[in-house]
Amino acid sequence: APPGILERLNANEVVIGDGGFVFALEKRGYVKAGPWTPEAAVTHPEAVRQLHREFLRAGSNVMQAFTFYASDDKLENRGQTLKITGAQVNEAACDLAREVANEGDALMAGGVCQTPSYLSCKSETEVKAIFKKQLDVFIKKNVDFLIAEYFEHVEEAEWAVQVLKMSGKPVAASMCIGPQGDMHGVPPGECAVRLVKAGAQIVGVNCHFDPLTCVEAVKMMKAAVEKAGLKAHYMVQPLAYHTPDCNCQGFIDLPEFPFALEPRILTRWDMHKYAREAYNAGIRFIGGCCGFEPYHIRAVAEELAPERGFLPQASDKHGLWGAALEMHTKPWVRARARRDYWENIHPASGRPKCPSLSSPEGWGVTKGHTELLQHREATTAQEMQHVLERQKKAKSAV
Amino acid sequence: APPGILERLNANEVVIGDGGFVFALEKRGYVKAGPWTPEAAVTHPEAVRQLHREFLRAGSNVMQAFTFYASDDKLENRGQTLKITGAQVNEAACDLAREVANEGDALMAGGVCQTPSYLSCKSETEVKAIFKKQLDVFIKKNVDFLIAEYFEHVEEAEWAVQVLKMSGKPVAASMCIGPQGDMHGVPPGECAVRLVKAGAQIVGVNCHFDPLTCVEAVKMMKAAVEKAGLKAHYMVQPLAYHTPDCNCQGFIDLPEFPFALEPRILTRWDMHKYAREAYNAGIRFIGGCCGFEPYHIRAVAEELAPERGFLPQASDKHGLWGAALEMHTKPWVRARARRDYWENIHPASGRPKCPSLSSPEGWGVTKGHTELLQHREATTAQEMQHVLERQKKAKSAV
Amino acid sequence: APPGILERLNANEVVIGDGGFVFALEKRGYVKAGPWTPEAAVTHPEAVRQLHREFLRAGSNVMQAFTFYASDDKLENRGQTLKITGAQVNEAACDLAREVANEGDALMAGGVCQTPSYLSCKSETEVKAIFKKQLDVFIKKNVDFLIAEYFEHVEEAEWAVQVLKMSGKPVAASMCIGPQGDMHGVPPGECAVRLVKAGAQIVGVNCHFDPLTCVEAVKMMKAAVEKAGLKAHYMVQPLAYHTPDCNCQGFIDLPEFPFALEPRILTRWDMHKYAREAYNAGIRFIGGCCGFEPYHIRAVAEELAPERGFLPQASDKHGLWGAALEMHTKPWVRARARRDYWENIHPASGRPKCPSLSSPEGWGVTKGHTELLQHREATTAQEMQHVLERQKKAKSAV
Amino acid sequence: APPGILERLNANEVVIGDGGFVFALEKRGYVKAGPWTPEAAVTHPEAVRQLHREFLRAGSNVMQAFTFYASDDKLENRGQTLKITGAQVNEAACDLAREVANEGDALMAGGVCQTPSYLSCKSETEVKAIFKKQLDVFIKKNVDFLIAEYFEHVEEAEWAVQVLKMSGKPVAASMCIGPQGDMHGVPPGECAVRLVKAGAQIVGVNCHFDPLTCVEAVKMMKAAVEKAGLKAHYMVQPLAYHTPDCNCQGFIDLPEFPFALEPRILTRWDMHKYAREAYNAGIRFIGGCCGFEPYHIRAVAEELAPERGFLPQASDKHGLWGAALEMHTKPWVRARARRDYWENIHPASGRPKCPSLSSPEGWGVTKGHTELLQHREATTAQEMQHVLERQKKAKSAV
Repeated sequence: APPGILERLNANEVVIGDGGFVFALEKRGYVKAGPWTPEAAVTHPEAVRQLHREFLRAGSNVMQAFTFYASDDKLENRGQTLKITGAQVNEAACDLAREVANEGDALMAGGVCQTPSYLSCKSETEVKAIFKKQLDVFIKKNVDFLIAEYFEHVEEAEWAVQVLKMSGKPVAASMCIGPQGDMHGVPPGECAVRLVKAGAQIVGVNCHFDPLTCVEAVKMMKAAVEKAGLKAHYMVQPLAYHTPDCNCQGFIDLPEFPFALEPRILTRWDMHKYAREAYNAGIRFIGGCCGFEPYHIRAVAEELAPERGFLPQASDKHGLWGAALEMHTKPWVRARARRDYWENIHPASGRPKCPSLSSPEGWGVTKGHTELLQHREATTAQEMQHVLERQKKAKSAV
Repeated sequence: APPGILERLNANEVVIGDGGFVFALEKRGYVKAGPWTPEAAVTHPEAVRQLHREFLRAGSNVMQAFTFYASDDKLENRGQTLKITGAQVNEAACDLAREVANEGDALMAGGVCQTPSYLSCKSETEVKAIFKKQLDVFIKKNVDFLIAEYFEHVEEAEWAVQVLKMSGKPVAASMCIGPQGDMHGVPPGECAVRLVKAGAQIVGVNCHFDPLTCVEAVKMMKAAVEKAGLKAHYMVQPLAYHTPDCNCQGFIDLPEFPFALEPRILTRWDMHKYAREAYNAGIRFIGGCCGFEPYHIRAVAEELAPERGFLPQASDKHGLWGAALEMHTKPWVRARARRDYWENIHPASGRPKCPSLSSPEGWGVTKGHTELLQHREATTAQEMQHVLERQKKAKSAV
Repeated sequence: APPGILERLNANEVVIGDGGFVFALEKRGYVKAGPWTPEAAVTHPEAVRQLHREFLRAGSNVMQAFTFYASDDKLENRGQTLKITGAQVNEAACDLAREVANEGDALMAGGVCQTPSYLSCKSETEVKAIFKKQLDVFIKKNVDFLIAEYFEHVEEAEWAVQVLKMSGKPVAASMCIGPQGDMHGVPPGECAVRLVKAGAQIVGVNCHFDPLTCVEAVKMMKAAVEKAGLKAHYMVQPLAYHTPDCNCQGFIDLPEFPFALEPRILTRWDMHKYAREAYNAGIRFIGGCCGFEPYHIRAVAEELAPERGFLPQASDKHGLWGAALEMHTKPWVRARARRDYWENIHPASGRPKCPSLSSPEGWGVTKGHTELLQHREATTAQEMQHVLERQKKAKSAV
Repeated sequence: APPGILERLNANEVVIGDGGFVFALEKRGYVKAGPWTPEAAVTHPEAVRQLHREFLRAGSNVMQAFTFYASDDKLENRGQTLKITGAQVNEAACDLAREVANEGDALMAGGVCQTPSYLSCKSETEVKAIFKKQLDVFIKKNVDFLIAEYFEHVEEAEWAVQVLKMSGKPVAASMCIGPQGDMHGVPPGECAVRLVKAGAQIVGVNCHFDPLTCVEAVKMMKAAVEKAGLKAHYMVQPLAYHTPDCNCQGFIDLPEFPFALEPRILTRWDMHKYAREAYNAGIRFIGGCCGFEPYHIRAVAEELAPERGFLPQASDKHGLWGAALEMHTKPWVRARARRDYWENIHPASGRPKCPSLSSPEGWGVTKGHTELLQHREATTAQEMQHVLERQKKAKSAV
């Protein structure tokens, strides 16, 4: 068996994560934007397997089973009309991830994420039961480690970690927050300390913000954990979209989400900067989330090749810093086969009638709650009410 | 057997093409930018098969074998170090395309494109021999029709059509030119007339320019063919990049080519406009080239669903005009589940330090020939010389 | 007396025009945007005199009396409620221009421009009578030469030239059109030939388009005049706004007109390029229109200082190419005291939520005639009807 | 005599300042960018008088004598080759301001600003002597009140206030800082408290940042002054340039300073927002600095007309919110004669090859000190050394 996640991190090795499955598979035709559920693990295993394989070739050390939003409450809630149970999805996803992990020396991880049950104010017991059901599969499938990710509320993330810890396996905990903190305003540093205390050996952030913003948030986590005299490893799995204009809820609130984000996609050269920045910040588990395609992960692996000591397999199909353009037909394109050209490019959008930045929407940003409630049915209003109550509770607790 | 390409077009049916294999597979890690050759058909068939399948699910009626730049002269020329022959690549590509075509009712096509032999002034006989070698495979594999595509010089395209016609199969001919015409300045209309006279039943353009520019060029072709009293069907397979700023050689000359084109990627909603515009122009073979991912083709198929009478399979995983956002967690995202929202969005780039447009480079644009020659080896200078000679010859012929 | 306009141009001298009075005085508080009439010549002579003086100092060789829209029909039509006659305005304007012209060696010119009478289909006799009334003042005040400018319809411009020619003084004729030609679609070349035949010794364009577009249109005029075997001098007095996005009616149709044009204002360095381009095109009467401030004219004079042999007076207060920044407090600002810095700058807008280009509005562009008529009173509908009739007449005449 | 500045502010009246003289007169040809000195008060009084008059007509209640950088040490230092003494400039400037102030009910103010003496580490005594010399003129000319403005270091501003206070006249103190504080890092709030303690009755900021940023800084001042149990009035006189991208030294460090700022110029509608925001923040002395033209001040006066009870004189030449476009020739331009049109416009730059934001330069930002020193002569290095020493001293003092 390959060395485990903690052995690698303890040895100060770089561990490269994978990219964003729901977004990549949405573009390939296997995931529905809106519900964002992963039933393709059962219905189209070849598509999921292929994406795993591409990330493996790109340099990923972690095959994370495609179990995003695969909790029973989510699957029921979000238009899952097929007769597929959460357990079936989780099992199939684990099998695929393991199969591909074994094609290299990658680790296989199972993950849980935020639940509708928490949002609708179900009790700690009920929410934990949801996580436990997924964990049962992960134990059965003998995952190498566990990830609690994409949490907007630190309380729910703590519950998840507490459940996952029961397995005895290493636990990574990652929140979808930026430097402004979670939805109750708990700062990243405090979130990290609480998650470490809950038992997570690796903490960090994923999704919702662009790479440099996420690195910033993880730096705050690291500082707070160290200040508290605790010890942890750090991870970051950001968006592959430039989002300098978003507020505390991240790219969800940008008007372009989720179907007009194209102009924001990072280039491979942006990824070099990200990887270096993350490494310099002391983060060692470095991957991606929504928007990351295999070539983005390859760029991370190529940037960190000096530290890792090797290039990923897929670099056979990529000249470093554009070197393979030496073989292009046109001489002026061949002249682009050099690092400083790509490192300094400011790429045009080809869209002169579009702005550079947008104004985020969301609760209290551009619309009042009342207006929002008007065109939504009761269940939604109820849901929103719960969030507001939790926020009030959280504030009074401070 | 499903109805042939000409039967469909004669019946005024919409035939949806596929997207761009070299660019999509480059991002997935199977094609090297620079040489752009398709040896993955032999080395990684599962990746090529998967991409075919995604286009099929997205609505494509044509599985074009992955034979781009698969001529022997190109494979030798461009860093092909594996012991794989052109014939092996062409055969493997045909098998994969046929396999997936049979999973639906799609047609399978073989294609040839511009050759280094033509560029280096080889004789008509020599260049035609190159095409013939690929055609032999296509005949053996019994393709449904043939495509001569990505030609910058109408003369070479004519030669290709003349060779392909020998098979007796339907021939489509598509040039990578815009409204300004081919590299010798032959206007699109004249190109089209010459190609129809050479035997092509379908003519059009592919690659190098954005969708609306390509549609414009095909309109010019159609007008000229009709004016000449000839008859043809029309095809268009453009880029999925906005390129309002490029000159006669298209996106190759943009400074962002090929590794910083991300901000230019079309949204699915841009594709709706393209599909409608192409249809309204009387074009019936509508597909994509570099930059097209499966969801772009799905958008074409969704826009033309009223005309075709059905949605593509992958629309199971896509609400029309964002309808599935009704199931999103946040109410203000649910409010985006409507056509007029997405139809009118002007997406921000998230890159305030980047411009909207670039200045193209290339021969005679921003650099003199001499300067270009300076940092290139002799073979290149020679190549360039040939092009210049051809251009002179072409001009004196007018 | 200083040499006349024709003597200067015949000697191939550069004659520098002034800038745009209505726009500059609007910003200073003396002209009302909308009516755009010049009654300030009577009511606030000190403000008009000061602006003349600034242009003189900046290098202008022509003090054009501030008689824009000073025809009786316009003054009556456009909210002129003061008891000031057209004659009074024209006389006062001439006196001011002459006073300042005499402070240097500048020429003084009187000008007429498009009339509401033409637009509302008054007869040739009636329209010419309007021009004659202004001409009477210009003769009485002994202007050095005459300018017929800002005409959208070549027919009206011809009438103006025919009237002005009666004076025996040199006549310059300038239309507010771009490369697409006048409002009836008469191309710039044909307009120029007709104006030369009508008696203009100088022809060109002013207003409505940015400098490089205007130079382009004048080039077309020059080519046509020469092709017709005629002889003329050429003038150009463009906007000081970048307008790459406007259609045949120019900046009037841009959504930013007239109160949000700020981000489009040309820098002094843009003006250097313009002046050089105009000079290279063989244009010798080079000035400005709306948006030109004194420092813009100074930049023209500084660029053409080698040809003219001297710098303008106001260059005492300006280091060439930023040289006076050598005296700035901060060292990194001092480092900007060099030509290549300013020549290559791509200035940011500071407005990341704004686009780079707009979509022009206007007849037949974004709104139908009917819709426009709906929110306008009868007289407007009538006016528009007249334009449409004229257009139809003009087309059937072709 | 009209009521004094303090009587007006005590009565909660709005007092409108004027705009930026050095920038406006630079464009008109009377001030040299680099030295930025005001000798035009002596050499071209008509130009200075005219600009005062335009601001008066636009609604300004304060005619500030044109004494910017009119200290003897600055005039000697900065290329003043004329035989004009500082006293002459200050006297002439006072006379002009008083003359025009008397044409309305405006107040006349004299001002001092940062000195080269302070920057080169002259003693408190020496620096104060510089201020005293200017004050002597102001007392002789019986100014209505005094302004200490454009200070980057709070210490120098305190010294200025202490000198000005000796006159017994009201003193306003305004620093060219943003929310990040002065060049030693003293926050705006602390600066304000110190200035009030030094004797200023009015405190605020001017120049260096765009309107909304300046309002933000003044809010911080107000909060700190109130927290300290002190009492003051507040003033703001910002740039008329959008500068979201600048660092602590403001627009000086933007690459576009000072000759390519055009795309950043605020529209009149931006000024409405500014005026409202400033008023809502409790600021009552509201004016402008570099970039403000008379029409910008008029927009401030028009926005605050409900509070002031009257429109400025120059509104005779301006329809509120574009109302006078009702008299435009083209119907679609007439359709723009409404508030919501202009209030919501996002004006295009017409510059698709330019970015939206820049990267500021300056000490420690993009270049090291050494590099800066290389292309500067010794005096500069010395100057810089002094600044660095002061910064060190200031830090060690904290």
